Amino acid sequence: MEIHEFQEMMKRLYFKRDSERGVNGTFNWLVDEVAELGEELKGTDPLATEKEFADVIAWLASLANIMGIDLEKAALAKYPSKCPKCQSSPCACTF
Amino acid sequence: MEIHEFQEMMKRLYFKRDSERGVNGTFNWLVDEVAELGEELKGTDPLATEKEFADVIAWLASLANIMGIDLEKAALAKYPSKCPKCQSSPCACTF
Repeated sequence: MEIHEFQEMMKRLYFKRDSERGVNGTFNWLVDEVAELGEELKGTDPLATEKEFADVIAWLASLANIMGIDLEKAALAKYPSKCPKCQSSPCACTF
Repeated sequence: MEIHEFQEMMKRLYFKRDSERGVNGTFNWLVDEVAELGEELKGTDPLATEKEFADVIAWLASLANIMGIDLEKAALAKYPSKCPKCQSSPCACTF
């Protein structure tokens, strides 16, 4: 599934609720989901870890929806198949 | 671009460095990028905000790469075009 299709799916599912919650509340949910992912990374349950990855990209898409940002366009504008710093693929940055 | 294609692109660009940094270091970078996104959400520069969205999905993909997790499969397993809690589209959860 394309990134923009996933974002549109999240919009169909959650846009009304996301809009009502607003940017700050939705960002706070994203932060909570990232923290939950961090906890699962310490564990030994691959399925639980996968679910937390799913939640992080889902809340990121929700946040992009209420900001009116196209996550796919944003991602490819910054990462057009080369490193944005050294312009190489693979990255050859020396830092 | 499909989610898995974006993840594969990030793997081509950064897998060697991501692997050397490891799970904890890469998760910490993800947390930092989420914090930077939070700062930009308070601002008035749409392009800067888009770049922070790009960085969050990029670092999430990097983390998935070193965990051996397919972000697209994980996302669609949890969000198969319906809410995982109420099974409806749009979500009709009453909480």
